[in-house]
Amino acid sequence: MQTNHEITATTHYSDATKRFLLAAKRAEITVLEQLSSNCRIVISVRNMVHALQRERGATNIYLASKGDRFAGQRATHIEASCEAESMLRSQLKSLYLTDSHDTANPRLLSSITLALQGIDYLPVLREQAKNLTLSPLDSTRAYCRLVAGLLTVIFEAADIASDPVITRLLVALFNFMQGKEYAGQERAWGAIGFAETHFDKRLCDKLSALQHAQQHHFAVFNEFARTCHKEAYELLDGSPAAHDINQLRKMIAQLADGSPIAAEISEVWFDVATRRIDAMQEIENKLTDSLTKEAQTKVNNAHHEMKNHQRLIESFTDEHAQDGSPLTMLFDPSMPGLVEDSDLSLQQHDMTGSSKNTDISEQTQTLSAHRSFYDLLRGQAQYIEDMSRELEEAKRAITEHKLVDRAKLILMQQFQLNENDAYRKLQKQAMNEHKKLTDIAATVVEISNRANQR
Amino acid sequence: MQTNHEITATTHYSDATKRFLLAAKRAEITVLEQLSSNCRIVISVRNMVHALQRERGATNIYLASKGDRFAGQRATHIEASCEAESMLRSQLKSLYLTDSHDTANPRLLSSITLALQGIDYLPVLREQAKNLTLSPLDSTRAYCRLVAGLLTVIFEAADIASDPVITRLLVALFNFMQGKEYAGQERAWGAIGFAETHFDKRLCDKLSALQHAQQHHFAVFNEFARTCHKEAYELLDGSPAAHDINQLRKMIAQLADGSPIAAEISEVWFDVATRRIDAMQEIENKLTDSLTKEAQTKVNNAHHEMKNHQRLIESFTDEHAQDGSPLTMLFDPSMPGLVEDSDLSLQQHDMTGSSKNTDISEQTQTLSAHRSFYDLLRGQAQYIEDMSRELEEAKRAITEHKLVDRAKLILMQQFQLNENDAYRKLQKQAMNEHKKLTDIAATVVEISNRANQR
Repeated sequence: MQTNHEITATTHYSDATKRFLLAAKRAEITVLEQLSSNCRIVISVRNMVHALQRERGATNIYLASKGDRFAGQRATHIEASCEAESMLRSQLKSLYLTDSHDTANPRLLSSITLALQGIDYLPVLREQAKNLTLSPLDSTRAYCRLVAGLLTVIFEAADIASDPVITRLLVALFNFMQGKEYAGQERAWGAIGFAETHFDKRLCDKLSALQHAQQHHFAVFNEFARTCHKEAYELLDGSPAAHDINQLRKMIAQLADGSPIAAEISEVWFDVATRRIDAMQEIENKLTDSLTKEAQTKVNNAHHEMKNHQRLIESFTDEHAQDGSPLTMLFDPSMPGLVEDSDLSLQQHDMTGSSKNTDISEQTQTLSAHRSFYDLLRGQAQYIEDMSRELEEAKRAITEHKLVDRAKLILMQQFQLNENDAYRKLQKQAMNEHKKLTDIAATVVEISNRANQR
Repeated sequence: MQTNHEITATTHYSDATKRFLLAAKRAEITVLEQLSSNCRIVISVRNMVHALQRERGATNIYLASKGDRFAGQRATHIEASCEAESMLRSQLKSLYLTDSHDTANPRLLSSITLALQGIDYLPVLREQAKNLTLSPLDSTRAYCRLVAGLLTVIFEAADIASDPVITRLLVALFNFMQGKEYAGQERAWGAIGFAETHFDKRLCDKLSALQHAQQHHFAVFNEFARTCHKEAYELLDGSPAAHDINQLRKMIAQLADGSPIAAEISEVWFDVATRRIDAMQEIENKLTDSLTKEAQTKVNNAHHEMKNHQRLIESFTDEHAQDGSPLTMLFDPSMPGLVEDSDLSLQQHDMTGSSKNTDISEQTQTLSAHRSFYDLLRGQAQYIEDMSRELEEAKRAITEHKLVDRAKLILMQQFQLNENDAYRKLQKQAMNEHKKLTDIAATVVEISNRANQR
């Protein structure tokens, strides 16, 4: 009886198999190019959010002073917003509204549509503010909704990204921007307290919730960002602005009994908070720079790989590979198949599969070393499998974010709680049961699902 | 000060917003059409798997009898396999190898490539079997690898499906087919034991592992299949074939001490197991019928929705909606934004969001009732959000499957175990700690990830 190794196969792979290998690579390129477009949009969205945050602050002061203060600054900020808007619009049009791009993700497009609808109404909002026919709080709310809508675009972009490295950067960026937005909301509520010359318990609770939310999102950022971004954040965290804001936070916490405070501190608070927030923009820039570079590198590498594959396929005749390595999956002992007691198969499968963080250039080298068409094909399949596994790990933060959000909504509805209290309830239970917050959230969601099925 | 409700807005939404709403719908259609193609491939793959399972069985008997028996049956089954192959090939070509379809999923294409490479070598395998230059075990292994490769295509199709209903059907189908494949492997190992006239401990362990694996996969099938499929399975489970196989299984279990048994029972075992497996094909047919219908309905509905959207958009001037509902997300209290203590926003958000299983026709009705462009847009965004949430729930089984697989691989490598033992180790720990198997698997994977990061 002959063993597998003695099979003398000539070119047995069909033309279709060859074409499918290339089609898989082409599909990978399409996906990466789409991803690269999404990254460009993310940058425009980030610029728009930053401009709106400044416009929101200036409009607030303008409205609170009945139009006496910040009219000029407000006009400047509106101009900057309009510039960011026109940049965003033209990019959106060129990237998603051409015939060749009806393959974008429906969820991303839907989140963009909603944000655009808000942007369409910015002139109405600005007109009302100009005429002082809007309270500072209502104006703040409107800007916050638009910022939340734009942040959703970034969250969706992270959620649909199919590359682990880019997903990690987008998760870091989303969480950093969300933290920055909460810092902006903290600034606004703090300013209201100082302007009213006292802080009551509810306002203090709100501020404390916003501080916790910042901590949470910056912690996730730290987990997913690269060393250079983390270092920049450490620098910010040790800066005079961060020191000053912590002092003021402590002072506010001691005013929960309603003790009065001089209204003049409002300006100090606003300046310190603004210095801190402005410094955050630099970290955002670093993150988006990494994103742009990474996306471009990925697309370039994939094109290079494609050429490499084409060249290799032409060169293979499958007459070599005399070293005993199988020429087909049918005779490859490392392929899973029949359940046996030795199950060597799966062990080998793991030994090649567990190589973490396959470098692209490394992959290229490995592929060039392939001795047969089957080797090339297995290498490509393994590469895609590795990427999927790393992607899942990178998506953990996104899944957990969604899970906690769902659990909060369920508790809010069930116990008529507000968002902060629902979050605290989850936190408390996690502490009591010595479990992770996400585990508690998962249990809440599971119980609710089961109840719904009945 | 004016309230939001008094804003008298005329058509404020920009042309771009309108175009994005339609682009999102168009993207949804593209995704559904891709999904529909994938479902058609899944059916061809299922036919190919079924044909190969029969060819495998006949080839086994042919080889074991040194070519004396089943030569005719084998030829018939090979012919059927070739027919299934040519159908699969022509579908694959028309669906994925045209220029307009370079948007297919790279992972799906990669799994297809690997399976095709195995199919390319079928003639080599058949030639070796014909010449009796292959042991029955090596032949079985080769066919098993190809079937495993084809099942991976179905698993990938389920994993990348973006519609909750179709994902549930694909998860049910994959698990049913995997269960059926393990039933086929049980038949093969059982036949070997009877042919050798005794069953040792290792063979009994293997058979018991295959029975457990069937139980597991049929349980997942039952969780995700529709009532009509579950009823068909119940019927099968109560059939004479199922009763007979259970009797034979009990008999084998009592032979673990190596007691001899008459070789003639081999035929009885093979016939009973074959009757049971053949009956499974009908359930597969039911599942794929549902899949085809569902995919077609989804595509049709989406086209209908698209026309509906276009018609509605033309009719809106946004001068109506005098009933106080907001015309923009900027003034919509149900949109999240500023963190406040009332947080009415999120409660309302949940009340619209928690509607489970939005029926398409129901959605159509709701959309027709929309009074403004913003209503339409919110309805669409909510619909997409609901779908995503349901999709995540439907993907739970897939995620758990991958998690348990990864944990098994880690344990196999770490403790030099075979697959069955690794699985049992997980099971034992889950029982000891009163936890779910997937929770234990998650812990194993997490610890391994942390160790790798160091």
